[in-house]
Amino acid sequence: MTKPRGSLGYLEEIAKRFVLITEDLSPSLPLKKIVYVFAGDHGIVEEGVSAYPQEVTQQMILNFLNGGAGINVIARQVGADVYVVDVGMAGEVEDPRLIKKKVVSGTRNFLREPAMTREEAEKALSVGMELAKEAQAKGYQLLIPGDMGIGNTTPSAAVLCALLKASPEEIVGRGTGIDDQALAHKREVVREALQKYRFSDPIDVLAKVGGAEIGAIAGLFLGGASLRIPVVVDGFISLAGLAIAYHLEPGIKDFIFCGHCSQEKGAVVAIQKMGLRPIIDLDMRLGEGTGAALAAFIIETALRILTEMATFEGAGVSKGREFDN
Amino acid sequence: MTKPRGSLGYLEEIAKRFVLITEDLSPSLPLKKIVYVFAGDHGIVEEGVSAYPQEVTQQMILNFLNGGAGINVIARQVGADVYVVDVGMAGEVEDPRLIKKKVVSGTRNFLREPAMTREEAEKALSVGMELAKEAQAKGYQLLIPGDMGIGNTTPSAAVLCALLKASPEEIVGRGTGIDDQALAHKREVVREALQKYRFSDPIDVLAKVGGAEIGAIAGLFLGGASLRIPVVVDGFISLAGLAIAYHLEPGIKDFIFCGHCSQEKGAVVAIQKMGLRPIIDLDMRLGEGTGAALAAFIIETALRILTEMATFEGAGVSKGREFDN
Repeated sequence: MTKPRGSLGYLEEIAKRFVLITEDLSPSLPLKKIVYVFAGDHGIVEEGVSAYPQEVTQQMILNFLNGGAGINVIARQVGADVYVVDVGMAGEVEDPRLIKKKVVSGTRNFLREPAMTREEAEKALSVGMELAKEAQAKGYQLLIPGDMGIGNTTPSAAVLCALLKASPEEIVGRGTGIDDQALAHKREVVREALQKYRFSDPIDVLAKVGGAEIGAIAGLFLGGASLRIPVVVDGFISLAGLAIAYHLEPGIKDFIFCGHCSQEKGAVVAIQKMGLRPIIDLDMRLGEGTGAALAAFIIETALRILTEMATFEGAGVSKGREFDN
Repeated sequence: MTKPRGSLGYLEEIAKRFVLITEDLSPSLPLKKIVYVFAGDHGIVEEGVSAYPQEVTQQMILNFLNGGAGINVIARQVGADVYVVDVGMAGEVEDPRLIKKKVVSGTRNFLREPAMTREEAEKALSVGMELAKEAQAKGYQLLIPGDMGIGNTTPSAAVLCALLKASPEEIVGRGTGIDDQALAHKREVVREALQKYRFSDPIDVLAKVGGAEIGAIAGLFLGGASLRIPVVVDGFISLAGLAIAYHLEPGIKDFIFCGHCSQEKGAVVAIQKMGLRPIIDLDMRLGEGTGAALAAFIIETALRILTEMATFEGAGVSKGREFDN
């Protein structure tokens, strides 16, 4: 191509990875991209770990369905479709546009008892795997997991601490915006939970201190990989889902893109420990799939360069002393 | 809006900056974006500072006009128009699509004599300022300078060293891809030039060791600021242009966006010394405006969020303990 070798940097690696995953050298563009926003509630909010009341989960689901949330705006901008999935909300939203895959009506407070049974955790994983298959059937080429669930940074932090052998100091952050006192308390909650349980495997971690949307996201990674459809990691909750998938199938790393580096404290640690390179880093911490959706546009750009750029020969341009390939 | 305060991170600052520059709270979207690729040649190539022969400048101009270069692909992807401007090519390209604003037929070898006269340097600045005005007349809302010119990282390095009080070790890099020996020689060339000349002001720097496209880019920054149209800084050559504009008008910093962090060695130093924050960092080093064009899409995304996202009240979503604004 008419450029010095390597001069498009990470874009070249991104295009290469996409081609290796999909085994398709000339993907059709624009990419058909799907965002699944997985909604779940968390019993742990009883402990005062979030700045927002639990009812916001349901209210935001309606906002997603009506196209008014951050992910809707970014999805329109990048040309992605948004589907909302109830995998674990405490309440009910009656709307035909909502995909109903509820495996639990909010998790239990994991300081008192396991958040989910093993069966519920396995069902949550299955939801993600099934939806990867449905996306494939509809022709989607790139999967973007999003999340909504008041309190969900707490189980995500617990999952990441348990699986990545990290401390609550490294991983627990402010979520939607708690103050110093609430942050200290949130750390204590995670620490206590980690002391309370012994974990037999990643699914056990998901069941005891995780959440339904974290499980569904893990399932989307697993399902995407098995179908050779790339999945883009979003922020903190998405990283917790990835950590579960990664500990079940370490090879998953070659089938995903790390969309962005969330500003939530533990995201950098999780990204480093799993050896990922984020595509963008804009201090975002909204979740919903917003960072990954924006990164999806850059993935598409990398593929467009691969498929549309002129070659030295085709354009009649002299090569340099270092030849491009 | 329906998101925790500050949760869209740098996107929020980007939107704020755009509104402050343009004094327009509801910009029409998608943004009308223009890339000006400024082409120039450089007498300093006689010293063997580039991996490519000078004829490539003209060949690439044809490639740009025919839509086959990296910037064309990225511009199509982000919805920007590309115009190519001959501001200092050694040769002639006869094509009605080329904007002819030649102020010099390639600069002189600045190791022997000043690259341009002061008058030529001033004309180069004027070209950029005029084209900012023409862009405004055509309704463009965002200006993206690109560059093409075999050898142009050498004058850019000299300009940045002279204006930012940096050493050739910090600033001179491999350009399109020279080897260690050529890099050492390129550093020596810049060092000699800096010893040879005394500079009276930024225009004198541009004249003695700069280039026509660097001057036109500086002019585009100045013109954009005077018309309140934001300009997106691209890579190394663009940073040299910005350094000239910045030393003529330090307030220019508030009227620009730093599009990306080029992988060319001195870019990081220049970005730090001018106190900028790049929007993306993908190890790109192609020039042509590619990094800035990709960043332009993110600027547009930030504005779309500003104009389309639902409010807490509008969407019936409960606020948290920390209120959004």
